[in-house]
Amino acid sequence: MRTINVDLGDRSYPILIGSGLLKDIAHYCAEAGFSERSPLLVVSDTEVAPRYLPALEEALRSHGYTVVSHIMTAGEASKSLAVYEEVMTTAIQAGLDRNSAVLALGGGVVGDLAGFVAATYMRGIGFLQIPTTILAHDSSVGGKVAVNHPLAKNMIGAFYQPSMVLYDLDTLRTLPARQVASGLAEVVKHGLLVDKEFAYWCRDHAEELLDLNVEALGYALERGCAIKADVVGNDEREHGLRAILNLGHTIGHAIEAVGGYGVFLHGEAIAIGMAGSALLAAKLGRDTSIYEDTVSMLSALSLPVRLPSEYDEDELMDAMMHDKKFKEGKMTFIVPDSIGSVSIVNDVQESLVREVLAELKKEERPW
Amino acid sequence: MRTINVDLGDRSYPILIGSGLLKDIAHYCAEAGFSERSPLLVVSDTEVAPRYLPALEEALRSHGYTVVSHIMTAGEASKSLAVYEEVMTTAIQAGLDRNSAVLALGGGVVGDLAGFVAATYMRGIGFLQIPTTILAHDSSVGGKVAVNHPLAKNMIGAFYQPSMVLYDLDTLRTLPARQVASGLAEVVKHGLLVDKEFAYWCRDHAEELLDLNVEALGYALERGCAIKADVVGNDEREHGLRAILNLGHTIGHAIEAVGGYGVFLHGEAIAIGMAGSALLAAKLGRDTSIYEDTVSMLSALSLPVRLPSEYDEDELMDAMMHDKKFKEGKMTFIVPDSIGSVSIVNDVQESLVREVLAELKKEERPW
Ligand SMILES: NC(=O)c1ccc[n+]([C@@H]2O[C@H](COP(=O)([O-])OP(=O)(O)OC[C@H]3O[C@@H](n4cnc5c(N)ncnc54)[C@H](O)[C@@H]3O)[C@@H](O)[C@H]2O)c1
Ligand SMILES: NC(=O)c1ccc[n+]([C@@H]2O[C@H](COP(=O)([O-])OP(=O)(O)OC[C@H]3O[C@@H](n4cnc5c(N)ncnc54)[C@H](O)[C@@H]3O)[C@@H](O)[C@H]2O)c1
Ligand SMILES: [Zn+2]
Ligand SMILES: [Zn+2]
Repeated sequence: MRTINVDLGDRSYPILIGSGLLKDIAHYCAEAGFSERSPLLVVSDTEVAPRYLPALEEALRSHGYTVVSHIMTAGEASKSLAVYEEVMTTAIQAGLDRNSAVLALGGGVVGDLAGFVAATYMRGIGFLQIPTTILAHDSSVGGKVAVNHPLAKNMIGAFYQPSMVLYDLDTLRTLPARQVASGLAEVVKHGLLVDKEFAYWCRDHAEELLDLNVEALGYALERGCAIKADVVGNDEREHGLRAILNLGHTIGHAIEAVGGYGVFLHGEAIAIGMAGSALLAAKLGRDTSIYEDTVSMLSALSLPVRLPSEYDEDELMDAMMHDKKFKEGKMTFIVPDSIGSVSIVNDVQESLVREVLAELKKEERPW
Repeated sequence: MRTINVDLGDRSYPILIGSGLLKDIAHYCAEAGFSERSPLLVVSDTEVAPRYLPALEEALRSHGYTVVSHIMTAGEASKSLAVYEEVMTTAIQAGLDRNSAVLALGGGVVGDLAGFVAATYMRGIGFLQIPTTILAHDSSVGGKVAVNHPLAKNMIGAFYQPSMVLYDLDTLRTLPARQVASGLAEVVKHGLLVDKEFAYWCRDHAEELLDLNVEALGYALERGCAIKADVVGNDEREHGLRAILNLGHTIGHAIEAVGGYGVFLHGEAIAIGMAGSALLAAKLGRDTSIYEDTVSMLSALSLPVRLPSEYDEDELMDAMMHDKKFKEGKMTFIVPDSIGSVSIVNDVQESLVREVLAELKKEERPW
């Protein structure tokens, strides 16, 4: 088992990564300080619950915990205030009290929503994350919890740290292949940000990662979580440094918004976005090998790196203007300086971004 | 002008109490650190907005602030997730960004809801409170923000401190007389908890307080806020000591729940509750003069101290059992030891509480 400690003063917590952790869930709940006298609420979705919930409930009940579960429809559409209210109703009806805790069993959607419930039920109760996707390695570090508003994603939320994160690698075996690759996009992103060696390691071990080899995957998730924990530890409430985590996300979010959520998965959209950031870097005078290497890494992981021609540049630009990453009208981009190092560049010209989008559609590069 | 500093480390903030503060609102917003480049959202209600909002907006705009306002229907029913979502929609449509702030212009309902919006819009933006009721002196200290769930009051919320509280005493002149008395119930509560002299002072200056004499009211609100700030400063997240603030609230909440909200105003319900706590004290062996003096203070402030006979003891007991103040099934009461001093008593017998309720309906006391 691998352990990463997310160091946030009195809100610090451990991330445990390994095989077979779920059968010891009661032990971990006790370690997290959850009392058997207060009901636990497990939040999961319709894809994950049938596979892993019965065993989880059984393991908890046989150790004296009272458990109630709320299963939401799988998919991003459930990350809404309406579902949030339904989960709150379940929590109240089950008699959750101030010593209770919420367990999020699922991917980032379940984690974000259940975390916002935990953050705001009686002004905050216990929270334990059990991520079942690779992408959720990202959402399990940093304490960002949220639901979407019909007008904008992740608009309503809080910063709320879990007591513990349990990453049981066995649950990843049932993840569809596209979801695996999508999650690995965020893993390699963490390498691109601050760890050159790890970024190339991901490329060189792409096959084992896509095959969910426990050794490789455990290491990749450990590094991914550790890098994110490091960035977040230096900037818990996103005042500055933490913004680098948005590498590829400005363009990626625009692609998701314009194409409709689910056409490209989140990791796929930000893979295109990361390719775009590397193109932008070239335009700003950085070495073109950054682009070439970024693309080779993403391609090795079966991720897309080109923008389909049907995406309209005007619509994408519009979507970016509405993106909350623009403070007071200025456009900010995270731009790679080399593999494993990035800068936050403010005042990026709109015309330059537009050029990048146009070139992202083409096979050939201008150099 | 009177200033109280709520001391919470890097979340500390000042409460300013005085006449004519609102005309300088732009100055205070600048002092709170709000930028003119990011829109401000004023949340108010249908009673308060027609009286004070136009001048407030004008004062802000003439100093270069962009302002958008959301006016909700006056009353507790607006403290709901549905209205919360509406305010969020207004905020997004107005383009509020991470440097924006929410201004709550109104009583506790507006303050609690607007505060929860501020706490959760983009995971937290600026928040400034402009309380326009006396009761809101209580909600403006402590950072508790919330909305109600149909099944339980204040169930959904957060701890979120404002940047500043502006108490303009002039706005209190239009407050209906019953609301004035109701607010004074929480003021005298703060005296009953920790300040004997202040509690008797309230009784002796009851007439000036009910008349909204600026000198007396300014002093009473200053003491009320300062006492609450002191309690909260020692226990920001309600782990222990802060529970004393619930004096009179267990019975009071049950009265509100059983009678229907609005039959008794909150302060009226907790006045009966505080009389009940003093009766409970007598039953637990404390001096009966505590009860006599408590009742004389509340009566001087035109507050009720008897439970109307139509309130059913079984229903009240039921409501108390559902009250979130009961941890893991045990009944906890805040019990006065003398005027200006209280204890947290766990394991209060259900039968004793039932006796108190029965006696609260009678004119005569058993001694
Ligand atoms: N909080 C953060 O810091 C943060 C960071 C990144 C992403 N996110 C959020 O995370 C969400 C995306 O996360 P995600 O990709 O995990 O989405 P997801 O939770 O929707 O999971 C993807 C799909 O896989 C299914 N699934 C999950 N685990 C499975 C398993 N073990 N076996 C089979 N199927 C399984 C789900 O039911 C779903 O259909 C987005 O809402 C995004 O905003 C949050
Ligand atoms: N957050 C906390 O710590 C805390 C503490 C105590 C109470 N509360 C909450 O506060 C709420 C009650 O507060 P409240 O009594 O101020 O209720 P309120 O906001 O509903 O105000 C009472 C009534 O007076 C009207 N009003 C307000 N100011 C006025 C003015 N200046 N002139 C004329 N009319 C005016 C309002 O429109 C409303 O109809 C409850 O929801 C309670 O849960 C919160
Ligand atoms: Zn992402
Ligand atoms: Zn109260």
